[in-house]
Amino acid sequence: MSADGFKRKLSAILSADVAGYSRLMGEDDSATVRTLTGHREMMSTLIRQHQGRVVDSPGDNLLAEFESVLQGVNCALEIQRELAERNAELPEDRIMEYRIGVNLGDVIKEGERIYGDGVNIAARLEGLAEPGGICISGFVYNQVKNRLKLEYEYLGDQSVKNIKEPVPVYRVLSFPGAAAHRGIEAKRA
Amino acid sequence: MSADGFKRKLSAILSADVAGYSRLMGEDDSATVRTLTGHREMMSTLIRQHQGRVVDSPGDNLLAEFESVLQGVNCALEIQRELAERNAELPEDRIMEYRIGVNLGDVIKEGERIYGDGVNIAARLEGLAEPGGICISGFVYNQVKNRLKLEYEYLGDQSVKNIKEPVPVYRVLSFPGAAAHRGIEAKRA
Repeated sequence: MSADGFKRKLSAILSADVAGYSRLMGEDDSATVRTLTGHREMMSTLIRQHQGRVVDSPGDNLLAEFESVLQGVNCALEIQRELAERNAELPEDRIMEYRIGVNLGDVIKEGERIYGDGVNIAARLEGLAEPGGICISGFVYNQVKNRLKLEYEYLGDQSVKNIKEPVPVYRVLSFPGAAAHRGIEAKRA
Repeated sequence: MSADGFKRKLSAILSADVAGYSRLMGEDDSATVRTLTGHREMMSTLIRQHQGRVVDSPGDNLLAEFESVLQGVNCALEIQRELAERNAELPEDRIMEYRIGVNLGDVIKEGERIYGDGVNIAARLEGLAEPGGICISGFVYNQVKNRLKLEYEYLGDQSVKNIKEPVPVYRVLSFPGAAAHRGIEAKRA
C-alpha cells in the first residue's frame, strides 16, 4: 500500500481489440457476436495458462494483466497464432483479427480493476499494431529482446495523450504462426 | 430467441464516460480513482433504483440498460443532478463530469453482455454530449418529449460509423439541477 491507500504494482498489461469491429457488426451482427465470443473464450483460456488475469472485456476489447512480462508477450504470441489458425477456417469477410499491445508499467489496483498510465499506454500500443499483429513498448522490448528470439521493428517514440514522455514502440515482426497470418493476407489479395 | 439463437430485445441503453479523464489521471491518479469509484457507486445505485442494470464499467466508461426508456432518461437526469452536487464540493481542478448518451434500440443479449447498433449509437450520443450533459436519439426523444417536460435542442442528424442512416440527435437543455451545473461553469469562468 502506498500513502494514498491504493496498492501500486508493476504489471505487464495486455490490451486487445478487434480490427474493423463495427464493419463486421454492420454486415452480420449475430455471426460477429458468435465469433467474438469464441475468440474471447480462447483468449481467456490462454491468459489463464500464462498465469495472467482478464481484468475486463467489454464489447470487442480485452484487458489483461500478468505478473511476468515474458508470460504476457508469450501469451500475446499464442493468441495471435491461435487466431490466425481459427481465422483461416472462416470465410474471407468473416475473418476477425485483433490488434494487441503489451506494456510494462505501474498500475493502481482497486478491487479487481487496474488504472494508470501503464493501461493507457497499452491501449495506445494496441492502436498502433496491425490487424493480427503485436506492438510492445520499449520497457517490454528491453525485458524480452534477449529472451524471445523474434524480429522487432522500432516504430519511433510515440506520443500518448496526457503522458509527458513519448513512448518507444516496437512491432513484433515475425513469429512462428506468422505463416498462417500471411496466408490470410494472400487470401485477401 | 431469433433464428440465429440470440435473444434480441428492445432496450434503453445508457452510455457514460468521464470528460477529460486522461488529464485528471495525469494530474493526480489516486485522487482520480477515488472520485471515479465514488461516482460509479452512486451511478450504479441510481441505475438499480430505476430498474436498470449496469452491463459493464471498464475504466471511466459505464454501460447500462433499462427496460423502460422513461426510466433510462430519468436515471440519466438523476445522475447528472447528483454529480453536479458532488462536483460542487470538489476543488475546481478535481471536478469530474460525465457525458451521457441515451438510446433506444434492439440489442443482442449474450449472457450478461449486450451488443449491436443500439449500443454503438448510445456511445456516439455520449460523445456528442457536453461535460455534465445528456444527448438522446430521435427514438428516445419521440418517447419522452410529451412525458418529460424538459427543453430539448435538435442537433441535426448525425452519422454513426458503419450505420447507414444518420441518427437524429437531441441535447437535453435544462433540467432541475442544471443550476448546480451552471454554478460549476461560473466557478470555472
